[in-house]
Amino acid sequence: MAPQQGTLLSYRPDIKVLDATIRDGGLVNSFYFTDEFIKKLYQANVKAGVDYMEFGYKASKELFDVNKFGKWKFCDEESIRSIVGDNDSDMKISVMADVGRTDLEHDILDKKDSVIDLVRVATYINTIPAAIDMAEYCKAKGYETSINIMAISTASDKDIKQALELIGQSGVDMIYIVDSYGSMYPEQIRELSEMYTEVGEKYGKKIGIHAHNNQQMAFANTIEATARGVSMLDATMSGMGRGAGNCAMESLIGFLKNPKYKLDPVLKFVQDEMLKLKKEGLVWGYDIPYLITGILNVHPRSAIECIKQERTDYSEFFQELWDKEC
Amino acid sequence: MAPQQGTLLSYRPDIKVLDATIRDGGLVNSFYFTDEFIKKLYQANVKAGVDYMEFGYKASKELFDVNKFGKWKFCDEESIRSIVGDNDSDMKISVMADVGRTDLEHDILDKKDSVIDLVRVATYINTIPAAIDMAEYCKAKGYETSINIMAISTASDKDIKQALELIGQSGVDMIYIVDSYGSMYPEQIRELSEMYTEVGEKYGKKIGIHAHNNQQMAFANTIEATARGVSMLDATMSGMGRGAGNCAMESLIGFLKNPKYKLDPVLKFVQDEMLKLKKEGLVWGYDIPYLITGILNVHPRSAIECIKQERTDYSEFFQELWDKEC
Repeated sequence: MAPQQGTLLSYRPDIKVLDATIRDGGLVNSFYFTDEFIKKLYQANVKAGVDYMEFGYKASKELFDVNKFGKWKFCDEESIRSIVGDNDSDMKISVMADVGRTDLEHDILDKKDSVIDLVRVATYINTIPAAIDMAEYCKAKGYETSINIMAISTASDKDIKQALELIGQSGVDMIYIVDSYGSMYPEQIRELSEMYTEVGEKYGKKIGIHAHNNQQMAFANTIEATARGVSMLDATMSGMGRGAGNCAMESLIGFLKNPKYKLDPVLKFVQDEMLKLKKEGLVWGYDIPYLITGILNVHPRSAIECIKQERTDYSEFFQELWDKEC
Repeated sequence: MAPQQGTLLSYRPDIKVLDATIRDGGLVNSFYFTDEFIKKLYQANVKAGVDYMEFGYKASKELFDVNKFGKWKFCDEESIRSIVGDNDSDMKISVMADVGRTDLEHDILDKKDSVIDLVRVATYINTIPAAIDMAEYCKAKGYETSINIMAISTASDKDIKQALELIGQSGVDMIYIVDSYGSMYPEQIRELSEMYTEVGEKYGKKIGIHAHNNQQMAFANTIEATARGVSMLDATMSGMGRGAGNCAMESLIGFLKNPKYKLDPVLKFVQDEMLKLKKEGLVWGYDIPYLITGILNVHPRSAIECIKQERTDYSEFFQELWDKEC
């Protein structure tokens, strides 16, 4: 399975778009979306030709208080079914499971009893063996699976290669490049994409990318990866996601040349629903504190705090962060 | 003179950064900046290691009413000197002259009488011969010169090649790729950079890039061009510029590895001065109407109007624009 590359006028049928609006956007509003919003998002994604829609996390109710989060942090089967019924569409449904924060035995049903198609396991590089165990468990239950290695910008090439080799030898279907800190430049994404797709080719795995917009690179990095054979592309409506957010669905769909993708349903959803969230006071998207955490290659938590406090002393913030984290 | 390429850990001494905040930002506020702002910008650029600062246009006072624009649309010698004196710094001073809108004989002094170092001639592809005449005139007066071919995303490869050949054979020092509509993707910038640097190598010209941020690609396209041997890089503080604006200086300086470039003076200028402009009501930067004109590869004027009218019916706007311009 050679990774395919395309030009601007061609398109690659192997490319799949995954909408992560609820899952990554849920980190902005603690997963308190209305059912109406989720239903409209589902309909918009189906119309737009999106291939997978991620509904949220499968978080353990032992570890997280169900009264402190909206239901999409837990993604009970009945919650998803209340939106999609039996999902009588071509779009597949995905959830994310964090290593160490998921109660697999209790929360992952047999595939035959579930409307979920794909379980994506999120892990740091040092918990890859646990992630593989989780993914194999889900695979055995009948799901497509992926392993998403987060914060990849802080991992060494040696560790990445070893991780990819381990995952390559497992039953996992997809491996994701995740630039959690939004600190990577296209040149680095190019190199990572080549490392990942080499393993993908060797073991028959699809490679994906999940980019963050701290340096306004989420879209650029996503299409750079695409040009290097990466084929699972994450995006969110208006780029909604933690901190600086993600690759915007409207940018990605505007770029992709496959006529199955339609921009209009995305634009309508953005104008009708995403602007409302912004008006209600939810804050995400590029801002200078994120640029700074991106440049320093550190977690965006300090930038989120900086923006929450409405601090604009960027020079001071940079120095503080340097002292604290570098 | 082979164009140099670098890696993320090396740096290329041939790279020069040009601050175009007043010139492109002046399109947002009709060039009404305070002298205090300009002085602080000058000081910040000097401290940041910026190589050129563009003060504005040399627009003809026959064609434009001096009462309808701030003085940086005209850049009289005394206006610039009131800020920089004899410019006792390592930073060079630049102005822009539009083809057909500049009164060369009247407004371009002999270099020995001027504090200006570089005259950049802005042209569309169909007025290249006039642009070359203008640039040769300025060259003969003793200035460095560049020709900036605007709206390059609408020109054919054949026309671009012919234009480059003509400019190559002239005395002009630099040739700029200008993505006026912010519609280009890094893949296209890569190809253009290769076309331009080939001519640059053949004739001993430096190649530059001036990017717009309609698709949040200004920074990505700028560093993509850099990786392909382009060495004159335009940026503006907070990306200030017409419509979606430009490559942000804070992003670019944060990226460049040459220790002569300092981020702190840029951050301080942004927090102290650029935020003030935004608070006063000036509007620029990425927004969905710009994404739409970018995708459709048309002039951003309709998007500017759309945002001015506070329209958020993006789907409708897209259809209107398609009918009108495509």
